[in-house]
This record gives sequence, C-alpha cells and structure tokens, in this order.
Amino acid sequence: MNGADSLVKTLLASGVDHCFANPGTSEMHFVAALDGAAEMKSVLALHETVATGAADGFFRISGRPAATLLHLGPGLANGLSNLHNAKKAHSGVLNVVGEHALPHIALDAPLTADIEGIARPVSHWVRTSRSAAEVGDDAAEAAAAASSGQIATLILPGDTAWNEGGRPAAAIARPEPEAPEAETIEAAVKMLREPGALLLLGPGATDEAALRDAGRIAAATGCALMTEWSNARLARGAGRVAVGRVPYPVDQALEALRPFRRIVLAGAKPPVAFFAYPDKPGVLTQPGTEFAKVAEPGPGAAEALRALADALGAHDAPKTAGPGRPEIPAGPTDPNGIAAALGATIPEGCIVVDESVTTGRAFFGLTAGAPPHDWLNNRGGSIGYGMPLAVGAALAGKGRPVLALVGDGSAMYSPQALWTMAREGLPVTVLIFANRSYRILRGELANVGVSNVGPRALSMLSLEDPAIDWLAMARSMGVEAERVSEAPALAAAIRAGLASGGPYLVEVMC
Amino acid sequence: MNGADSLVKTLLASGVDHCFANPGTSEMHFVAALDGAAEMKSVLALHETVATGAADGFFRISGRPAATLLHLGPGLANGLSNLHNAKKAHSGVLNVVGEHALPHIALDAPLTADIEGIARPVSHWVRTSRSAAEVGDDAAEAAAAASSGQIATLILPGDTAWNEGGRPAAAIARPEPEAPEAETIEAAVKMLREPGALLLLGPGATDEAALRDAGRIAAATGCALMTEWSNARLARGAGRVAVGRVPYPVDQALEALRPFRRIVLAGAKPPVAFFAYPDKPGVLTQPGTEFAKVAEPGPGAAEALRALADALGAHDAPKTAGPGRPEIPAGPTDPNGIAAALGATIPEGCIVVDESVTTGRAFFGLTAGAPPHDWLNNRGGSIGYGMPLAVGAALAGKGRPVLALVGDGSAMYSPQALWTMAREGLPVTVLIFANRSYRILRGELANVGVSNVGPRALSMLSLEDPAIDWLAMARSMGVEAERVSEAPALAAAIRAGLASGGPYLVEVMC
Repeated sequence: MNGADSLVKTLLASGVDHCFANPGTSEMHFVAALDGAAEMKSVLALHETVATGAADGFFRISGRPAATLLHLGPGLANGLSNLHNAKKAHSGVLNVVGEHALPHIALDAPLTADIEGIARPVSHWVRTSRSAAEVGDDAAEAAAAASSGQIATLILPGDTAWNEGGRPAAAIARPEPEAPEAETIEAAVKMLREPGALLLLGPGATDEAALRDAGRIAAATGCALMTEWSNARLARGAGRVAVGRVPYPVDQALEALRPFRRIVLAGAKPPVAFFAYPDKPGVLTQPGTEFAKVAEPGPGAAEALRALADALGAHDAPKTAGPGRPEIPAGPTDPNGIAAALGATIPEGCIVVDESVTTGRAFFGLTAGAPPHDWLNNRGGSIGYGMPLAVGAALAGKGRPVLALVGDGSAMYSPQALWTMAREGLPVTVLIFANRSYRILRGELANVGVSNVGPRALSMLSLEDPAIDWLAMARSMGVEAERVSEAPALAAAIRAGLASGGPYLVEVMC
Repeated sequence: MNGADSLVKTLLASGVDHCFANPGTSEMHFVAALDGAAEMKSVLALHETVATGAADGFFRISGRPAATLLHLGPGLANGLSNLHNAKKAHSGVLNVVGEHALPHIALDAPLTADIEGIARPVSHWVRTSRSAAEVGDDAAEAAAAASSGQIATLILPGDTAWNEGGRPAAAIARPEPEAPEAETIEAAVKMLREPGALLLLGPGATDEAALRDAGRIAAATGCALMTEWSNARLARGAGRVAVGRVPYPVDQALEALRPFRRIVLAGAKPPVAFFAYPDKPGVLTQPGTEFAKVAEPGPGAAEALRALADALGAHDAPKTAGPGRPEIPAGPTDPNGIAAALGATIPEGCIVVDESVTTGRAFFGLTAGAPPHDWLNNRGGSIGYGMPLAVGAALAGKGRPVLALVGDGSAMYSPQALWTMAREGLPVTVLIFANRSYRILRGELANVGVSNVGPRALSMLSLEDPAIDWLAMARSMGVEAERVSEAPALAAAIRAGLASGGPYLVEVMC
C-alpha cells in the first residue's frame, strides 16, 4: 500500500469522509487513492478559497472536519483567508497540501515555497510527512486536531504519497471537553444573580440545547442574554430561545453593553470593536466591568451552561420565540423589505449563511419567528466566505435548504463557488445584494474622520462602471438566476429557488 | 500631514505612481491620501490576486514597481499566490497592507492575524510601521527594495496612517548592479569556446539588447543559446535574436540538454524539472556538467553579457529571426491552428502574456517571425496569473496591445481581472483555451505512474458538468466576447479584439 492509500484509509477511519479538492501534479497519487475509496466524497473546487470555505461550512453543520486537497504553497495560500475565517469560527479543517517529493524540494523548482511558513499563521497543527510509513500516523493526529475544532495542515511530499510502505492508522479518540471547576461555576452563579449581569454566549454555546440552558439560567437569575456579533452557528426561530447580538457599530455596541458591569463568558470573549477608529474605544464594555469565564469556545461551552443551570436549579421552561411571519410590504427591496421577504419564506431546517454586510443589519428582527433554522455568520471578517461556506453546509446538511445572503462586493471574492453548487446540484439559494459598491466603506470613511472625499477615492469604493450582471455570472457557471427589485418578487424568487432543489441565484437590487 | 499622506508623497518621490487597490476600513486614510494625489493612478481590483498579479505585470513591462493596497492579513493572503509568482519572476512589488491601529491589535478582533507571518514566505522585506513619523522612511526603504526587484511588504497600522506627524522621505538611490569580476568573465569565455557549451539566459538577460549580446557571443564562440522554460519577459520576433527554451516535459528537456557538458548561467539557474516524478531525474542536465555563473537574475545579467561580448571581441552582427507570418490553416482551433492564428496576427509591440499551459507548447515556432513583441511566462507556476498580469502589463504598456493566452482552468482562478480591464478600458484581448479540463493533469496521472483511473478521479480533472460559458462570464463583467472553433475565425477574432482598443475575450474551443 502506498502512502496516499494509507492517508485515505486513515481519514475514513477517523470519520473524515468529504474532501474539497483542487489538485495538481504533486497530488495525483492522492487523487488516485480517493478514486479507490467509494466512501470518500470528493468535491472539486475551481479555486481553493471554495475548498477551505466549504470545509468550514461542513464542520459548522456536521460537527465533523472535512479534508481539503490543495496544490503546494500557492494552493494553500489561495485558501488561506477562508482558513482564517474557519479558525476564528473554531471550525476544524484538515488540509492536505501536496509538496514536491522530498529530494526535489532543495532544487528550488518554480512552485517550491515555504509551505509550513504559509500554513502556520492560520493553523494550530502543521506537519510535513517524512516517509510513506509515517503518513498514516500523521493523518490520524491531524484528524484528531481537526475534530477538536483546530486547523490541521498535513503537508504530503510526492514520494511519501507514491512510495510503498503506507500504514493506515486507527482514529485517535477525541478528548472530552473538561468539565468546569466547581469554584468557576460558583463564582459565575454568584455574578449572574447580581444586578447588571450579562451571560455572553460564544461558539459552542449557541445550539438549541445550549440556548435552552442559557434561557433557563436567565429565567432563574434575571440576567441578560446575548451572543457575540458573529456566530459560527446560531439556532433560531419559533420555539427556540431568542437572543440578541452585540451590535457591530461601536456606538450601538457601547449603548447595548452599558447596563452591564458583570459579564459571564460561555465560549465568548470580552467584546471588542471590529475595527479601531480614531475617537472611539476598542473595548466595548464599561471600565471596571468584571468578567468570569466558564468555558473556552467549543463543546465545553454547552457543558458549562448545563453545569450552571444545574447549580442554579434552573428547571423552569425558558422564554422562547413565538411563531410568526411578517407581512411582505409592497415596496422595494430595501433592508426592511428584504428582511420581511426572508421572514416570510425561511423554511423549517433552513441553513442561513449570512454575508450580507451592510444590507443585513436589520434581518434579525423580522426573521425571529420563522420556523426553526440555523444562522451562520462570518467570524473572521475576511469577505468571500458566504458562497463557499454554503457549499459545505449544504453537503453536511444532507438535503436541508440553504439560503446564502451575500453582498455583491463579497460575492466577487469567490464566484467560483457557484460552479461547485451547479456540479453537485446543491440546494442553495443565493441572494446577491447588488448595491454596486463596498457600501460599508462609504460609512467607514466618515467613521474614521475622512471628509471632503473626492471622485478618485469614491471610485475605489464603487462597483459601478461596469455594473456586474449577476444573471450572466450565474448562468456562465450553470446556475439559474433571476433579478428582483420589489419585496414581493423577492419572496417569490426565494420560494422558487427553494422549490428548485438545486442552486438558484437572485440578484436583489438595492 | 498625517502618516498616510506622507506615505503617498514618499511613494511618488520614489517613482511609484500606480496603486492596485482593494481597500477596507483600516485603509480609509490611505484611500483619502490617494485621492489627494493626482499623479498617483489608483486601480480597483475586486480580488487581491488581481492587484498583486497586476503589480507583477507592471514591473515586467515598466521596470518600476507598483504599489498594492491590501486589507489586513486575509487581504494579503488573497494576493499571496501571485506574489509567489512575482517573486520567482524577480518582479519588484511594494505591498501596503493595512493593519489595525497598534493598540487594537492586542484585542484580537476578528480580522487580527499574524500579517508579518503571512508576508514573510513571499517577501524579501517586511516591516510594520511604528508611528506616523516613521512611515515615510519605511516607505522609502520599501520602494528601494521593490525597485531592485524584491517583494517589499509595508504594514501600516491605522493610527500610523491617521496620526499627524508624517514626514515624507526622499527616494533612496537604487544601487547599480555589480559588474562581474574579471576572473568570472575569463572562466566563462574559456568555457564557451569549448565544444558542448551552452549559454543559458534567465531574468535580466532576455531583453532585446541582452539577446543581441548573447547572439554575438554565440556567433563568436559557436556556443548554443537557450532560455529557461519560463521567461519573465522575452523579446522576440522578426529582427531579434531567436532563442529556444528548455522544454517543460522532463524527457524532452533531458534530450535538449544532453549535448551540453558546460553551461554558462546569465541570470539563469541550473535547469531542474518543474515537478518530481517517481522514475525521472529532477536535475535536467547530465551528471558531471560544469556550470559557470556570470550573473544573478536581474539587471546585472545584461551587464555580464555585455562584458562577455566585449571580452570575446564579439562584434559581428548576431543571427536574427527573419520576418514571416504563417498561413492560417482552414481547420479547427487545435494547438497548431491556434499557433498559426497567433503567428498571423501578433502586432508590432504586442505584449503576450502566456498562461496557455498544455495548449501553448507549440506556440513558439509559428510566432517567431511575427513583428517584434514581448512574451511573458509564469515563472512561479501558480495558476491564475495570466489575466491579472495582463492588467498591469497593459497599464505599463501605455497603449501597447496585450494578448493574454489563458487555459480555462487557469482563468477560473482570477476571472475578476476582466472587471478591472473593463473599468480601465484596457487594450487586452484574452484568448480562453476551453478544453474544459485541467488537461495537463490527465497527462500527469500517467507520468506519475497512476493507471486504471476511475470516474471519481477523472471528475476531479474535468471542468465539464457544467461547462463554463465564457461569453456569459465576460459579459457579466462588461467585456465583449465571442466564441470560435476554427483557426481562420480565431485570427479574425484576434484582429477584432485588437482593433477594439479595449478588453475583448475570445473563447477558443479546443
């Protein structure tokens, strides 16, 4: 058995059964090994940012890491920004990066690069396999790291793939999250019972069960509940505990957090501004605010909430959102009209991938009573994550409908995701919010104190001239598409997209 | 004056007057500073790989570095693969990477990343400015590094841009390339006069004047002449010294280099295989071959050729290519038909950007007698370089026509370049070779010894299902397009594209 075969066998033994791939010459033996493994689903991406973003989405929905297959240093580099996003979302990803055969590296061929150096800033775990015999053990370690929410990058020199002597390795058991210490829980309980207390939820603490525990804690103590601005995956909708988010704009965030002097962190970090501004604080809480952390991000956060609820004897049913869909106004697709169309159409079990940037800040209110669904945000802030994430989320969702909400500026970072949606026939309805600008930056110019902006600067923030025709873009990659500018037409288009069962793009003029 | 203004003033003083930009919040003051400087041409890219590839193309044609403007770590990461290509081409690029304000970095906001760590694998020079007062001096150093063909990455924290106290710096003089030592020239002269000698030309030794010197040396000594497989910029066409390249396929390269036991390197490296294969050597020359290096890549290589020609008293006119255009066969757009159509249409002064991968291996023969033109190859091997490079080459060319020859698989890495071509009205005719596959990889499967390939592996190498509609793709971004499948129609389409004076895309079925 060669090293490549031992790698595929080890991945499967470790529960890694999806591979988002953009292979090259140095990965041909791995491709051949994938070919021999019917249990491994290989998905071709035409740009690596689709592969890494898809792996992030796959983890968020399935809780299991997918593999990516990337071509040497530059292939990894192309996937780096969505690995940054995955890292900030605590999504585990297992990158398999091809490398020249070991004796070839010193020859400094054109594609030779410092792959480990490129990997390190976004990876928790990096290793270059040294022989075919070691590939299996390396892969098992990488899979264990990725299964616990880490970015693991396994670099596979060509000869370690093609040489005989491969030895598949058994899965390494994933460590159980550590239960919080009794004193930690005690201190948090004490804090939550005092006035002006907030329980802030982060990754691991935003699924349905964790939110129910958080809701019980709030009912028992009177504390406030909030999540961070961006959630890796937030369970929402009718019958679920509804929580607000720390707002994105600094002034609004300061206002929202002003009442709280005691904050218990379950998977969350102390809230800070997304960007720095000349005359605004970076820390969003009031000076002197006390923090108590009950859990790091990850599965331990849900555990800690359960322990907190138990310690409080909090068994009353929590307050949940009632069902309700908004009326669709007979007006244009402005933020309110879009929010109403979403609230009226989000189906049960929907996965909403939100990269709506400016357009989407009003979406939460009118969608709160829709049937139960999951809402996924960008936690790393690198745009171009939405459509790739939708690819992986749809594959992990096994038929669950996916709605991807994407600003046009963001969508232009990864249009290739549409092609993979078409090839795989994925049930993804993509809304492109075509404001034809990096609209967020128009506001940011003022926020950072720039006035008297001239045409040269404004042209750097505009996507006009030429306007992008998203219908042509979608059709170029085999995706059906339509354009709407009124809220009722948008609702009808979303329904048509969902009913199609495949990919569908709606260009929303706004 | 704030730091951002001092940066723009320093760039202009250092001869950097083009900026390929994809800005974000943290770069708003730099955008405002660009706005105030009419001499600075700012060009918006909708993905950073377009910005960095354009800077590479700009340097190859103008010999001067352009700036890029990138948004924090992930923005730099998105541009990394084309920086890898630029580095391997010895193209100077000055990256300005926005960063959070210094006090904000420790807060670990979503976009916080190890920017220096991301930059280092592709940069010769990396620095984070520490204050507004230091930005000018930092920028002058960065510009000096970039002017000498290096990748310089200047990281600009928000507060160093917006704080007052900026001090523009004067340009730092670019050091003259060192003249080769007398003994080096003497040893090379001796070697070139012996039988079985090859003069191998690399970056810096492939412009018209350097090739004339090389041609004189060959005439005086009887040595053979060759360039590396990939040239940053090769002067070709009627009246110029014609040189062959070291072939890409290993077996052909071994055959081509077999006669030579003595190789003089002018800007070139000892030839090695692009990839490693299980049963082929990585070193392409015969064991025991002697090498003599007269210059590193860069301007010194032309200088060394001049010194060599002088030492040889080689004043006879070199052998040059005669003018001549091929007949266009009345057949399909197969590699030969495409080569003939190119040979029949390449106009004087044309810049040919070649990312044709498999389709283009036959192009050199039939284009050798076209009017004088420059031919640019990918030296780093990371695909997606062609259309971005064409953007920068066209801007540096100030009206020179550009032909970009791009495989469909490669073009899908950076389709956003079409939008920038449309916005800037650039005279770029793009030929997309639509073989609807990563065709090179089909051959590579066999080359690495993989047989019995199944449908799952083949689907990873195919761009069918869905086929990409390049006409729709081009039109979605405002670029006129047509599709051809016969060589005469291709020649007509190239002429139409060139005559349009703007961007034009031809989908070439093959």
